[in-house]
Amino acid sequence: MSSSDSLDALIQALRRLPGVGLKSAQRMAFHLLQRDREGARVLSRALHEAAGSVQHCARCHTFTEAGVCHTCLDPKRDATRLCVVETPADQSALERTGAFKGLYFVLMGRLSPLDGVGPKEIGLQKLMERATNGAVQEVILATNFNAEGEATAHVISEALKSRGLHVTRLARGVPVGSELEYVDLGTIAHALADRR
Amino acid sequence: MSSSDSLDALIQALRRLPGVGLKSAQRMAFHLLQRDREGARVLSRALHEAAGSVQHCARCHTFTEAGVCHTCLDPKRDATRLCVVETPADQSALERTGAFKGLYFVLMGRLSPLDGVGPKEIGLQKLMERATNGAVQEVILATNFNAEGEATAHVISEALKSRGLHVTRLARGVPVGSELEYVDLGTIAHALADRR
Ligand SMILES: [Zn+2]
Ligand SMILES: [Zn+2]
Repeated sequence: MSSSDSLDALIQALRRLPGVGLKSAQRMAFHLLQRDREGARVLSRALHEAAGSVQHCARCHTFTEAGVCHTCLDPKRDATRLCVVETPADQSALERTGAFKGLYFVLMGRLSPLDGVGPKEIGLQKLMERATNGAVQEVILATNFNAEGEATAHVISEALKSRGLHVTRLARGVPVGSELEYVDLGTIAHALADRR
Repeated sequence: MSSSDSLDALIQALRRLPGVGLKSAQRMAFHLLQRDREGARVLSRALHEAAGSVQHCARCHTFTEAGVCHTCLDPKRDATRLCVVETPADQSALERTGAFKGLYFVLMGRLSPLDGVGPKEIGLQKLMERATNGAVQEVILATNFNAEGEATAHVISEALKSRGLHVTRLARGVPVGSELEYVDLGTIAHALADRR
């Protein structure tokens, strides 16, 4: 299509990235080749490295180069609390708050039957084993507060409660720093219902 | 920041792509590692390959692996017409129309003094030499129809006309297939002024 086969191959490869169509891929390829060849080389190496070395932690499922991640191996973490999140990005947001000292279980997705993501794909059985290991006293569900995240939390909650486990959910409420008049009504309603 | 150094490095590298912030980079890295490792490897190779082999055509400046691109070397092209475009993507859009059989000069950008892109960066001197080689009879300016593209066309046009060259510009007008009531007023005004 263009005057260079390597350029065409690069554009096609960039289109495999989520949210990147033909126009974005062309713009990215142009930028890298015209203004940031070093960036192209850095990205090439990072992809090669990550694709070859990143695996899943045997205990919490998050991405790690080791068999078990450093969070799971950290003896200072509180093993009685297990926080369930959808992705490593959600886990790292929680870590940045510094407010949670327990351990994690990363679903690596959320229930989405239409996309073929069922209980098996999010590792529900593994989570059950992990949560009933004798050490865990509370499972905190920190899936997202959208339809699929709520449905995922519901299914996990039912399964864990049937084994007699104490299950909690992150509080819904007014974001810190917000002015009430600009907060959406559903959030205010939840904040009222969950008032403390 | 996350549980994996390779993952962090990949996220940082993805952020060098234009229009990709932290959230997009995290989503891309997650997608590649969780669902498309082969895509990560394909993209890694394509970047390495393109960064190492793609250079600029000595005649038209477009990206090519050869010293001179296949369009410039094609004896069936009409060497009396030279079309000036901003990027290889614009060139390939024109090629797909099949309506132009001449040669190209690719600016690899457009004038943008605030970003440090001046006449030198878009190869104006080289374009002058190319256009005054004796063969070229008409230079068609096909830069974009926005402020910077128009300014670029104006500067090039003035420079070429001062050498006595015949310079034309792509027609502005109503896009094929449009209904007038949905076309913006500036476009209609230009279509009126340029009526034929
Ligand atoms: Zn772990
Ligand atoms: Zn060429």
